[in-house]
Amino acid sequence: MAQQDRAIRTRRLILEAAASVFDEQGYDRATIAEVLERAGMTKGALYFHFASKEQLALAVLEEQVLDIAVEPQKIKLQEFVDSGQVLAFRLRSDPIQRGAARLAVEQGSNHLDRKQSMLSWTRFVVGMLNEARDRGEILDSIVVQESAELFVGAFAGLQMMSQALTNRADLNRRLTIFFQHTLPSIAVPAILARLNLDAERGAQLDAALQGKALANAEADADAGVVAD
Amino acid sequence: MAQQDRAIRTRRLILEAAASVFDEQGYDRATIAEVLERAGMTKGALYFHFASKEQLALAVLEEQVLDIAVEPQKIKLQEFVDSGQVLAFRLRSDPIQRGAARLAVEQGSNHLDRKQSMLSWTRFVVGMLNEARDRGEILDSIVVQESAELFVGAFAGLQMMSQALTNRADLNRRLTIFFQHTLPSIAVPAILARLNLDAERGAQLDAALQGKALANAEADADAGVVAD
Repeated sequence: MAQQDRAIRTRRLILEAAASVFDEQGYDRATIAEVLERAGMTKGALYFHFASKEQLALAVLEEQVLDIAVEPQKIKLQEFVDSGQVLAFRLRSDPIQRGAARLAVEQGSNHLDRKQSMLSWTRFVVGMLNEARDRGEILDSIVVQESAELFVGAFAGLQMMSQALTNRADLNRRLTIFFQHTLPSIAVPAILARLNLDAERGAQLDAALQGKALANAEADADAGVVAD
Repeated sequence: MAQQDRAIRTRRLILEAAASVFDEQGYDRATIAEVLERAGMTKGALYFHFASKEQLALAVLEEQVLDIAVEPQKIKLQEFVDSGQVLAFRLRSDPIQRGAARLAVEQGSNHLDRKQSMLSWTRFVVGMLNEARDRGEILDSIVVQESAELFVGAFAGLQMMSQALTNRADLNRRLTIFFQHTLPSIAVPAILARLNLDAERGAQLDAALQGKALANAEADADAGVVAD
């Protein structure tokens, strides 16, 4: 394995370990020592990538948004729905998503700026809704920034509720109900009628994305290509 | 002041002190000692009402729902909207509401069942929506339990976002946007056209309710009646 490739893997392993500690302990109670133990790494390896607990947390929050990339769709709003369903599904088991969700929700710490997560998700949704607008998919009355912030804020609460009540087992279904209540106020009728809001879509898309990532990694390995 | 009346006031003072400590410190870091100091009370007075920190927290969560009672309206959905706007407004300054909100959101503690708050708010919303259904105000397609849970979960997230970004200064406005996006999928058109979703309504209703409570208290004092 090339040196750069190894560094990328080490960084990801540290982030996953940190995210799982944040998920279980919260930011305040999480310690670098526990992250090291879980990742099976030395202090030197961790500090090469991250200078502090705060930097670890911020990196987990950044990684969360990068991880959610779904297949392009003819209808941009479908891509938006799909991103939400994949995120909802991964919040059940993906350590990065779970850790980031807890960091984004906690009121506790003064050291960590909780706004980061909300602002980066809002940018993500604004980008999608603006493209949907360019394609004529959403109603003229919609103020993209307002709707985007509503989606981000409401989603944070729904995932919290789902976590408390069912350890997020029903989060995809809650998201479907949310889309059913809000998209009729956002999408033009002809688009609304073509959207697939199924709660099962999260699991299906995740499986397809994982399969594709695996195939790409194998192709890269065969060609001797270093992942970047 | 009659003994019973004094006990009620003491209990309320303790709850307000506890709620403000929970709001600032979170459940795990809150201590009985700090609650006592803030309330200016002795241990004996507190333990007469509450056996433990957990009981204090549960009492704050119960008090939160009891505190939100708005004037009856011809349109039940207006009463529902009004309750939301009053709650959103009070989350800025009312210690009980602020403390309860943090308790409801925190993932931290194993000792406190976060579900309690969500379940009692859900019951509150289900009651309102069922009455709205009886009056013919909501669409046949609506499943009351689903919509109620959506409102409770999404509201929790919106208040969290508003708190992180503006210390809840824009929460009433965020709630208006939420109602604008969801009520068209819930209310029958003739009712939808008559709803007042103004963000300023929270402050106005709160002032009216406070004025009425004050007038009642004065009338009771004049008549020598003990509040119950």
